Amino acid sequence: MIVGCVAEWEGRILLCKRAIEPRHGLWTVPAGFLEKGETTAEGAQRETLEEANARVEIAALFSLYNLPHIDQVYLLFRGRLLDPEISAGAETLEARLFEAADIPWDQIAFTTVRNTLNHYLSDRATGHFAFHIGTVNRAGARVEG
Amino acid sequence: MIVGCVAEWEGRILLCKRAIEPRHGLWTVPAGFLEKGETTAEGAQRETLEEANARVEIAALFSLYNLPHIDQVYLLFRGRLLDPEISAGAETLEARLFEAADIPWDQIAFTTVRNTLNHYLSDRATGHFAFHIGTVNRAGARVEG
Repeated sequence: MIVGCVAEWEGRILLCKRAIEPRHGLWTVPAGFLEKGETTAEGAQRETLEEANARVEIAALFSLYNLPHIDQVYLLFRGRLLDPEISAGAETLEARLFEAADIPWDQIAFTTVRNTLNHYLSDRATGHFAFHIGTVNRAGARVEG
Repeated sequence: MIVGCVAEWEGRILLCKRAIEPRHGLWTVPAGFLEKGETTAEGAQRETLEEANARVEIAALFSLYNLPHIDQVYLLFRGRLLDPEISAGAETLEARLFEAADIPWDQIAFTTVRNTLNHYLSDRATGHFAFHIGTVNRAGARVEG
């Protein structure tokens, strides 16, 4: 199980440029494997701290993606940064806050992250955040609801 | 990761009396370990088929419980039975459809299941199903939102 979050500071969204494979050099939200003894929200907070030295308050679960071909489930939360102090962690080349218009869509590391960012911005524009669930298989993304 | 569902037929809720430990003889919703190569919703459908020989259509994710002290995450969906034909599977002593008023609250196997059934009935009464997330630790249940 992979846990992570879309973390916002005054409308800008935290993305991390990956310093590790797979997808070295591409951008993602902070996310990684849930560890023993932690809740899913605690895991998302820890990953945000590890990858961007950023402290985040988790608001709600935002999306779930099944990746059955690699036996993974992604759980991504929404969160609010407690302050704008961010910097690259050990597995990150660069941590940056992006305005929606500046998100590098052609350099996003994973389909799950691209879909989640898309849903996040659409929902934010309507003023109501829904919960999104989907499946990504070898053939690409299939959104379920 | 444990996946399962609250499955309904014409207002009645499917519960299974456990034929296995832990909590032999107590009631639960169909649920079990996610298997390789399946999505979370597919796992919930399979568990419903295995435990109650029941075919269910999954509607939406309903609750997530963290059990960090035993390194488990429960994902429980809402679902609708395709027909009322149910019977005990190999790990079930008895499968039965319960009216809300008849749910055996003092014989429910797990805190996660009791909380989920409580939320389900409260939500159903309001006509709006929310998503519920919580943590159950050694000390009991702590609901997060």
